[in-house]
Amino acid sequence: MRGGKEHKLAKLPNPTIRRYPVYLREIFAIMNAGGKYVSSASLAERLGQDSVLTRKDLAMTGVIGKPRLGYDTKEISAAILKALGWDKPSQAALVGVGHLGRALLGYTGFAEQKITVSYAFDADPAKIGEVVSGVEILDIAKLEDRLADGSTKLAILAVPDSAAQQCADALAKTPIKGILNFSHVLLTVPKHIRAQNVDLAQPLALLSHQILSD
Amino acid sequence: MRGGKEHKLAKLPNPTIRRYPVYLREIFAIMNAGGKYVSSASLAERLGQDSVLTRKDLAMTGVIGKPRLGYDTKEISAAILKALGWDKPSQAALVGVGHLGRALLGYTGFAEQKITVSYAFDADPAKIGEVVSGVEILDIAKLEDRLADGSTKLAILAVPDSAAQQCADALAKTPIKGILNFSHVLLTVPKHIRAQNVDLAQPLALLSHQILSD
Repeated sequence: MRGGKEHKLAKLPNPTIRRYPVYLREIFAIMNAGGKYVSSASLAERLGQDSVLTRKDLAMTGVIGKPRLGYDTKEISAAILKALGWDKPSQAALVGVGHLGRALLGYTGFAEQKITVSYAFDADPAKIGEVVSGVEILDIAKLEDRLADGSTKLAILAVPDSAAQQCADALAKTPIKGILNFSHVLLTVPKHIRAQNVDLAQPLALLSHQILSD
Repeated sequence: MRGGKEHKLAKLPNPTIRRYPVYLREIFAIMNAGGKYVSSASLAERLGQDSVLTRKDLAMTGVIGKPRLGYDTKEISAAILKALGWDKPSQAALVGVGHLGRALLGYTGFAEQKITVSYAFDADPAKIGEVVSGVEILDIAKLEDRLADGSTKLAILAVPDSAAQQCADALAKTPIKGILNFSHVLLTVPKHIRAQNVDLAQPLALLSHQILSD
């Protein structure tokens, strides 16, 4: 899909991928404090997590740790960033600028992922032209036109459930490759587009069940 | 922790718990359409998910399906709600009423979980007294006092990273049992409190990796 064979990565297990950003933050904290090496055991301890699991996750990057020292922090962080595609800058488009959309435009975490939110679209004429966190809100009717050049690969969908599929249909006409979907709708999208739901009910379920079984 | 032995539930695997809210929504949709039974195969198909996995997840509720019919929709949804502690109404307190906090106050999904956000706290004097989605914003200095009666078990932390641990420390002085943490901070909390991070980087990592390995 990305052309050259060198960009095609082995598919890693979802739970491993889900933990990678958490490892990254810890490794960056260690690097900021001047740390040159990190062992899977010390990383596991910092995160209150099983060390065998951590060792397996890190081994999947292909990086080999040094005996008694652990992983080179630069090397392991670079390998994780590469596995996530966060080693190169990319652009995202936000669709829907309600409270959640505004929170997302102000979200500083995207910088960690080298993601810049370049576009924000909304259907409400009262919002169009307004600048939020440095991004001008554009008329959603311009979505297809603005995304046509293919420089934006990621869409962040923060519209009400009732508008989600219609927006996904509009996005499907653009060269977008992935949709981060904050609605509850299970989107129907063409095969070349990936949709990932962000569902608040899921971490809430984990927490509720943990409290009950304590 | 909840006193009676009947409230103590077997600890289920995290990935299963994470899928339960997704199953619930589909089962409710089937019930709303008049469906009395649902098979794990049809549920799996609706969700584009492996049917063996779905069967195992549903079996963990302890409910037994009927041959050729599947699960009674009322019975299986009640069992899932019970496993998540969403069979009884509960109250939550929101801490931090920025854009994300406002989005959360307007979030209709909490009704699915029988959760009512009863309190909203903020440190900004300009916001105190304002009513957002029917909830009055209170001075965060009142947090300990308002939560002292133990009727609120869940706190939703939507403050900047820099304030997160301090707020968790204040919550630790109340009878709160769980913190849904939207900051990136790995909170230090007493053993009787559970903290669950909601990390946008995790679904974003899944999506980025999927796009790369397509």
